[in-house]
Amino acid sequence: MATQKRVWLFNEGNASMRDLLGGKGANLSEMSNIGLPVPPGFTITTEVCNDYYAEGGFPSGLMDEIKTALSTVEQQLGKKLGDPANPLLLSVRSGAKFSMPGMMDTVLNLGLNDETAASLIKSTGNARFVYDSYRRLIMMLSDVAFSSDTNHLSKHDFEHMFRDMKAELGVTDDLQVGADSLKELCDRYKAHVKAQTGREFPQDVTEQLQASVEAVFRSWNNERAKIYRAKEHIPDEIGTAVNVQAMVFGNMGDDCGTGVAFTRDASVGTREVFGEYLMNAQGEDVVAGVRTPEPISDLQKQNPAIYDEFDKICNGLEDHYKDMMDIEFTIEHGKLFILQCRSGKRTGPAAVKIAVDMVHEGRITKEEAVTRVSPDLLDQCLHPIIAPGTKYDVLAKGLPAGPGAAAGIAVFSAERAAELGKGGKNQKVILVRADTSPDDLKGMLAAEGVLTERGGMTSHAALVARGFGIPTVAGCAAIRVGDDSFTVGGVTVKEGDPISLNGTLGEVILGTVPVVDPEMTGEFGEFLSYADAVRTLGVRTNADTPEDTRLAIKLGAEGIGLCRTEHMFFEGARRPVVQAMILAENDTERQGPIDELLVFQREDFKGIFEALEGRPATIRLIDPPLHEFLPSLESLIEETATLRAQGKTDAEKEKLLTAVKSLHEINPMLGLRGCRLSIVFPQIVAMQTRAILEGAALVIKAGGEAHPEIMIPLVAHVNELRVVQEDLEKTAKAVEAEQGISIPYTFGTMIEIPRAALTADEIAPYTSFFSFGTNDLTQTTFGFSRDDSDKFLTVYKDRKILPGDPFESIDQTGVGQLMEIAVEKAKRVRPDIKLGICGEHGGEARSIAFCHKIGLNYVSCSPYRVPIARLAAAQAALGKGIADK
Amino acid sequence: MATQKRVWLFNEGNASMRDLLGGKGANLSEMSNIGLPVPPGFTITTEVCNDYYAEGGFPSGLMDEIKTALSTVEQQLGKKLGDPANPLLLSVRSGAKFSMPGMMDTVLNLGLNDETAASLIKSTGNARFVYDSYRRLIMMLSDVAFSSDTNHLSKHDFEHMFRDMKAELGVTDDLQVGADSLKELCDRYKAHVKAQTGREFPQDVTEQLQASVEAVFRSWNNERAKIYRAKEHIPDEIGTAVNVQAMVFGNMGDDCGTGVAFTRDASVGTREVFGEYLMNAQGEDVVAGVRTPEPISDLQKQNPAIYDEFDKICNGLEDHYKDMMDIEFTIEHGKLFILQCRSGKRTGPAAVKIAVDMVHEGRITKEEAVTRVSPDLLDQCLHPIIAPGTKYDVLAKGLPAGPGAAAGIAVFSAERAAELGKGGKNQKVILVRADTSPDDLKGMLAAEGVLTERGGMTSHAALVARGFGIPTVAGCAAIRVGDDSFTVGGVTVKEGDPISLNGTLGEVILGTVPVVDPEMTGEFGEFLSYADAVRTLGVRTNADTPEDTRLAIKLGAEGIGLCRTEHMFFEGARRPVVQAMILAENDTERQGPIDELLVFQREDFKGIFEALEGRPATIRLIDPPLHEFLPSLESLIEETATLRAQGKTDAEKEKLLTAVKSLHEINPMLGLRGCRLSIVFPQIVAMQTRAILEGAALVIKAGGEAHPEIMIPLVAHVNELRVVQEDLEKTAKAVEAEQGISIPYTFGTMIEIPRAALTADEIAPYTSFFSFGTNDLTQTTFGFSRDDSDKFLTVYKDRKILPGDPFESIDQTGVGQLMEIAVEKAKRVRPDIKLGICGEHGGEARSIAFCHKIGLNYVSCSPYRVPIARLAAAQAALGKGIADK
Repeated sequence: MATQKRVWLFNEGNASMRDLLGGKGANLSEMSNIGLPVPPGFTITTEVCNDYYAEGGFPSGLMDEIKTALSTVEQQLGKKLGDPANPLLLSVRSGAKFSMPGMMDTVLNLGLNDETAASLIKSTGNARFVYDSYRRLIMMLSDVAFSSDTNHLSKHDFEHMFRDMKAELGVTDDLQVGADSLKELCDRYKAHVKAQTGREFPQDVTEQLQASVEAVFRSWNNERAKIYRAKEHIPDEIGTAVNVQAMVFGNMGDDCGTGVAFTRDASVGTREVFGEYLMNAQGEDVVAGVRTPEPISDLQKQNPAIYDEFDKICNGLEDHYKDMMDIEFTIEHGKLFILQCRSGKRTGPAAVKIAVDMVHEGRITKEEAVTRVSPDLLDQCLHPIIAPGTKYDVLAKGLPAGPGAAAGIAVFSAERAAELGKGGKNQKVILVRADTSPDDLKGMLAAEGVLTERGGMTSHAALVARGFGIPTVAGCAAIRVGDDSFTVGGVTVKEGDPISLNGTLGEVILGTVPVVDPEMTGEFGEFLSYADAVRTLGVRTNADTPEDTRLAIKLGAEGIGLCRTEHMFFEGARRPVVQAMILAENDTERQGPIDELLVFQREDFKGIFEALEGRPATIRLIDPPLHEFLPSLESLIEETATLRAQGKTDAEKEKLLTAVKSLHEINPMLGLRGCRLSIVFPQIVAMQTRAILEGAALVIKAGGEAHPEIMIPLVAHVNELRVVQEDLEKTAKAVEAEQGISIPYTFGTMIEIPRAALTADEIAPYTSFFSFGTNDLTQTTFGFSRDDSDKFLTVYKDRKILPGDPFESIDQTGVGQLMEIAVEKAKRVRPDIKLGICGEHGGEARSIAFCHKIGLNYVSCSPYRVPIARLAAAQAALGKGIADK
Repeated sequence: MATQKRVWLFNEGNASMRDLLGGKGANLSEMSNIGLPVPPGFTITTEVCNDYYAEGGFPSGLMDEIKTALSTVEQQLGKKLGDPANPLLLSVRSGAKFSMPGMMDTVLNLGLNDETAASLIKSTGNARFVYDSYRRLIMMLSDVAFSSDTNHLSKHDFEHMFRDMKAELGVTDDLQVGADSLKELCDRYKAHVKAQTGREFPQDVTEQLQASVEAVFRSWNNERAKIYRAKEHIPDEIGTAVNVQAMVFGNMGDDCGTGVAFTRDASVGTREVFGEYLMNAQGEDVVAGVRTPEPISDLQKQNPAIYDEFDKICNGLEDHYKDMMDIEFTIEHGKLFILQCRSGKRTGPAAVKIAVDMVHEGRITKEEAVTRVSPDLLDQCLHPIIAPGTKYDVLAKGLPAGPGAAAGIAVFSAERAAELGKGGKNQKVILVRADTSPDDLKGMLAAEGVLTERGGMTSHAALVARGFGIPTVAGCAAIRVGDDSFTVGGVTVKEGDPISLNGTLGEVILGTVPVVDPEMTGEFGEFLSYADAVRTLGVRTNADTPEDTRLAIKLGAEGIGLCRTEHMFFEGARRPVVQAMILAENDTERQGPIDELLVFQREDFKGIFEALEGRPATIRLIDPPLHEFLPSLESLIEETATLRAQGKTDAEKEKLLTAVKSLHEINPMLGLRGCRLSIVFPQIVAMQTRAILEGAALVIKAGGEAHPEIMIPLVAHVNELRVVQEDLEKTAKAVEAEQGISIPYTFGTMIEIPRAALTADEIAPYTSFFSFGTNDLTQTTFGFSRDDSDKFLTVYKDRKILPGDPFESIDQTGVGQLMEIAVEKAKRVRPDIKLGICGEHGGEARSIAFCHKIGLNYVSCSPYRVPIARLAAAQAALGKGIADK
């Protein structure tokens, strides 16, 4: 039950009351109080919306309170709702705490009926205006209050009737329809309502009002509103307020008009009023696109006095709100009214520029600036985008797996991509695959963008895409990828056909759209320096090469949080050596290839330490199952069966098949990998440890610094760590002795198995650091394989079974609980333990806020997420991040 | 540091002091105190053993305390250690709290040197006896105290020298070697010690004594002792005591002898003294098997006086210890000495009979009887065994995956097993496979026993084996299984060759051994009734058929704890229907096969409810991924590739290949299964729910009772449960309405995913019961796939990385911690929630004790484990189970 006053006049509230009055209501109150020309009205609180759902109907006594507020408005204006002598017309609009543009219902021109319409025609002498308003009311109110699955009272149905009439009249433009025809349309509308519902369109204006208010409450839970809230992480239980406001009219003649404007440019952030308006129109016409609105700058020429007044109001609002504002206004017979204002939506680059400019203007502090740009917006600053203003059609939608836009010709194999793309013929290519595997890496790197039919946000393609900043649309289930083409609907795209991707939104576009590179302007760097000044969480990067390392450092990384040593094993020249190592029949035979790899890996690490210039590097020992480095079992079975059937049995292939079969695992994710591999094949990690320390020694001897942190993955039981670490300590000491120098190395472990988290107090005494591997921890805590979970997670998403994708943002209730248990238990026995996170979540804002909260020392993420992590960490430190909504 | 008296004379201790004096020492004290003829001596405490390891050497001052105790013994006997006039000889033996027979070291005849030997020859006039004793001392002390990897002083080396001498003399029996030769042998032994160590064999008897005591301490940590402790779950840190005792001699002539005896028959439990003895011999000769000992009954004829005395002592010991005892005795010149007594090892059937008999004899209470039989021993009562006394050679050893013995001819495919075995030609066959899959079920059921090359204790073969009571040896890595034979070492076993298995010990035997069925005698039932009277934990069974259900009830099950509905899908006639259901392209097409399955499943459940006669049945909805019901991807790829290469492409097969490919998962364990399947394909579980309730309705209408508990598997998030359960509640209500009766059904969930355990407080409000699925919970908590973990768990076992196999006994630290969290959180919000366990652990004694401790209501296990669970639950309730060791 609403615990307090349920209906608030605009001059009774203020901007701080967003929880109770919603964003729109609070701002209408605020603007009224600071003397802006706001048509009078009142707000019904969000609590009433919740009462409406709790009580299952219109709250009792509410209409009385509404009437009391209404009478004040009527006295202010000297008009009365439903009074044929001098009728007041009202708008009824939704308004939740957080803006949900267009998601809920609105009713305009409320108060019109046959009687008041007639009287208004007399008083205004403008029959066309009155019938235009009346037909809009009938349509809107019927749509929101009376339409159902079994009748034809949706907006769409009424618009159809209007189109029919225009066809009858032989006209196309609404303005060409005269007063008589609109009167006739009103009659047709009313008859239609009667026919569909068996009841007359209500002539009782109080009934109109109650129906409108109830419709707005109901629209809080319509499908699109629920989906929007889920997407934007807006809670379902906050409800919407209802704003009832006196109408002013932009459609009463040529000295009337309506428009929307931003106090600054929302695309690029420059400081100038930016917007559009239409003369002789109501607000919805601006949005509907039937008539083309004019730029706000034209208003300056057309009506300099009004424009000046508007400009002054814009400035005043910025002074007052200390933000860039989005304003709706109406001009009624030359008088300016402000109908709404809210914080203006803006692009990432605009958000950064506006925040920095406002610091320079003295409007906000640097800390405030940090809270003004969401991490998602900042991401836009880091990737190529489709040139602003480009219109395009979306052919299919998939998952936004790798942000950024890309355009090029389609190719269907990694080989073709490498041949035609970067490093080959240097054409711009888009690699299209059913899914990708590590074998496709070279082709992916040669492509502008990647499109896959299968795979989720953490599929191989997506991980690589984000790691290397390749615009990627993954899991695009609508397309069918064949060997040399893909189809979607009736369209077939073949090799060489131009396509474009918007990886930020998961869009696939036929043809080429213009793509522009982001500018990391001075404001970008300045803005992030504000963030760095407040954050307490360190930010490292996941990088496996000197190039990535340098890129990440440029983007602000303070070290490497995850260097995956096995990525180096996939490179061309090493692959046969790695295979020889795996296929060796005994330790002696295995030593040869291992010695060869040592030479490669030593150079790898030397390069990385050089790139780091003394920053620390957490290097993970080999993790994946060995069969990942061999051809797939399926392809080998097919090849050998074919050869056998043709009588051309190939002994080498048969031998390889036997080896791959013996390494085959039913659930490789839970098989022989991580530290288990180190225990079964200790030579490999001994080599890696030697390579790391010898690489470090080379750098130190050349006068540099190196801080290797050697990480043992997939520990479930403390003894696994002890056995591996004790062995490797011996190798490390041996290298130090051989090199005759001391190397500041440490050992640590990943916490990525539930049992490790649960027994962190047993593990912590033996190791210097923990790094949470939240990808695997999420897999094991949920029992979800991220390679296979698409099939059901899509259904889960549709049915809202999970609050979000746990591979995208940390599941704080389950996975997070394990992390908290691990942090608490580890710190109890080892207060100085260093704690980090290196899963994909390390670059996701809510997860970063969670990591801050539970007391980690740093997060690590792919290079292009580093700026986002810096910002999210700062917002978390200020308690004003995404998680504090 | 030992906190108290370090050396205890036998008359200073008693039987309750096993912790401090070890089992042997405590019993020697006890026997001394009750006046039995025990040679005097003293015990060095187990704490001293720990001091030895803590200090890294012989504890200071200890020799003084030993000498003090020794002097008391010397006074008692009027002899002195090392005194040439009247030398005392000593034995030095290990003795831990728990018996570890033969694992640690012993030194006999200590105190002999050249001088005392000469004097003893004089006093006894028996030079042969003295040199025989002397050569034994030199061999034993050298073996335990002076041998090393780099010398040749092991017992084996000395025995070799003895064999050489016998060869020189042309004799085979030790007794044929005369005094002079033995003297010569002693000289050769001494020379050999000198040659190998550079030092003389110690003539100083105090040095002999200290070396012997230290050797016993050291033997606590020899390899075989460590392995034995690991196997028997004996802690490493309890240490061994050392017993120093005056020697008596069974080898001084024909009026001397030595033997071991049990106070009752250790094989079958009948109440008669049972044992063996040898005249003119030392104890080790009885064990060594060089001479064949005589049955103890012969002693009655040979020396009735001695026998009577011995029989009286046996009776007295049983009265005193209230247990069947294992006794070592020596007769020296016609005088009987008791050298050791301990609780006698016995077979399962004997253990049960003795416990029940002792209750009847008034020696022990029923509760005490319950603690007298370990669950492992009880298991022996439930399976066929190799006829007691049969000698056989073990060809290879694997995992004891399914207890019991079996003999038959080898077959190498499930088809052949079905053709030749039970239900076919009714020959006795042993099915030998590289590994088994659900396809092999029919063949497994037709076989006497199963042998597999691969797979662990919870592999498919092992699960089926235990479920159906099929003697099975799994994971027998030594054998190589081909298509129609297996090889091991040089031996090849082909189809039709006779082999035998001892599944209880994991042994594979060439040829046929006699196998006898267990008798579930009256004592067995009576014994378990004692257990039922004290246990508080319920015992249910895992059963999928009416036959299994009836068997389990006969074995004491109180209901079904896990009925796996999908097992019914594998049966012959249903397989094509199930495949049609899976391959259907849409829901409409799918409905046909589903309707067909409904008819089958309704009958299944009706039969099960009838068999249960009103007992509850927890029925799990379909759990495994659907591809398990289709042919394997590998085999299809091979078939289609072969056909294609031969130009004989088969459209049906190609279509099946496409379907199987689309269902293929990289980690099926973490894929589309359990409740995820119910959410994606709701029709299947709707059918199952309907079948369950319609089956129940049929039974109720026929005047019976049915209590279905429908279980939703693999829940990770409460919403998964809610969505599935809400749907199925509707089906259930619909069936009730159609049938016009009320059915007492409930819904519940499995807790088998870490996240479910961590969020039990969110889940519990929506459901009536939890059943812990500890197989999957162990897999996800450790990140171990039980299908793939053999490869590393074998290494882990060898290197003692894990304290035990977590798939065998619950990992209480990790998995158990999650269970405790779940129990605590669930009970907090729903105190009346019913809690059970249905993983394989539900039939394992330590796990059952843990379930009792954390407050579960019941355990559920395969039928043949039900009696074991009843016993383990009772022992847990008495606080005297295996976990209380």
